[in-house]
Amino acid sequence: MQKLTHDEISKNRRKLEDFPVIQRNPIYAMADNIRSLYNVGSIFRSSDGALISKLFLTGFTPHPPRKEIDKTALGATLTVPWEYHKDPMAAVEQLKQNKIKICALELTDKSIPYYDLTPEDFPLCLVFGNELTGVSKEVIAAADMAIEVPMYGNKQSLNVAVAYGIVLYDCLRILHRPTQG
Amino acid sequence: MQKLTHDEISKNRRKLEDFPVIQRNPIYAMADNIRSLYNVGSIFRSSDGALISKLFLTGFTPHPPRKEIDKTALGATLTVPWEYHKDPMAAVEQLKQNKIKICALELTDKSIPYYDLTPEDFPLCLVFGNELTGVSKEVIAAADMAIEVPMYGNKQSLNVAVAYGIVLYDCLRILHRPTQG
Repeated sequence: MQKLTHDEISKNRRKLEDFPVIQRNPIYAMADNIRSLYNVGSIFRSSDGALISKLFLTGFTPHPPRKEIDKTALGATLTVPWEYHKDPMAAVEQLKQNKIKICALELTDKSIPYYDLTPEDFPLCLVFGNELTGVSKEVIAAADMAIEVPMYGNKQSLNVAVAYGIVLYDCLRILHRPTQG
Repeated sequence: MQKLTHDEISKNRRKLEDFPVIQRNPIYAMADNIRSLYNVGSIFRSSDGALISKLFLTGFTPHPPRKEIDKTALGATLTVPWEYHKDPMAAVEQLKQNKIKICALELTDKSIPYYDLTPEDFPLCLVFGNELTGVSKEVIAAADMAIEVPMYGNKQSLNVAVAYGIVLYDCLRILHRPTQG
């Protein structure tokens, strides 16, 4: 078993100029009041990996250009369509007008496991919030549904960028491998 | 839809004293030459969430006690069994003696998509490496198999803690929801 060389890996890369025309996944994401620049960069990187349609950065979530974001995003800030809205409800309104379901990643009385989303739930916007306080009550009130990542250990949450990655990649399974449930 | 209160969330927590006796998942992890304390803390947190059997920290991967790890692990360093070995091959040897398959998370000429693992591949140790250089050739040479996380965008990798979380939680799907493929 041999590691691929940098050249072999680079051959598989899409060219930047192809990005405006490629078909993106019907997945949107909204990062509301995220504190950590490191998390924002990681979220951009995962959003590029899953080829989502658009990333909304809202509230006090830091947004490009910030060198700390670019350092962890490794260029993904150029390949992921994104918008910043100070007011998260402005993003929610735009999403609702476009018939995109709002799905909060939060522990609520109605949350379902993330893997129980169905292809019919898309286009979908995954909304996740502050590292300590989660998604704001205002956004929860406007959400169409909520999902949670089951925790089997002692703690009750994952790092927000990790939780986003888990849910995001399972959305790709649900959209592209529906026969696998 | 109402957010759960801290008390409601806490009620679901396992007590620390239960941990020595609970049945853990047949998943092991090995973090070799990870540079970032932030990533190590996040990896502990995900490892707790998935209730893995043991986390091996090897090479120059920082290990507890380190306040920066505890800050991001949020207590998971107390609930996840872990060992530190300066020499990664010492951990590999221990795993092989215990008939645990070594699975590198790396782009190789034989890597399969992470979601194609099967219940028969477990007990399994997910091995992931340095943020820049990946899993070392020495460990790759000793690995039984390799998996990769398909990238659909322009970049060719995810943050290592995010990639670990994606693969780890899909292992739970494979182990506990095999009829869903």
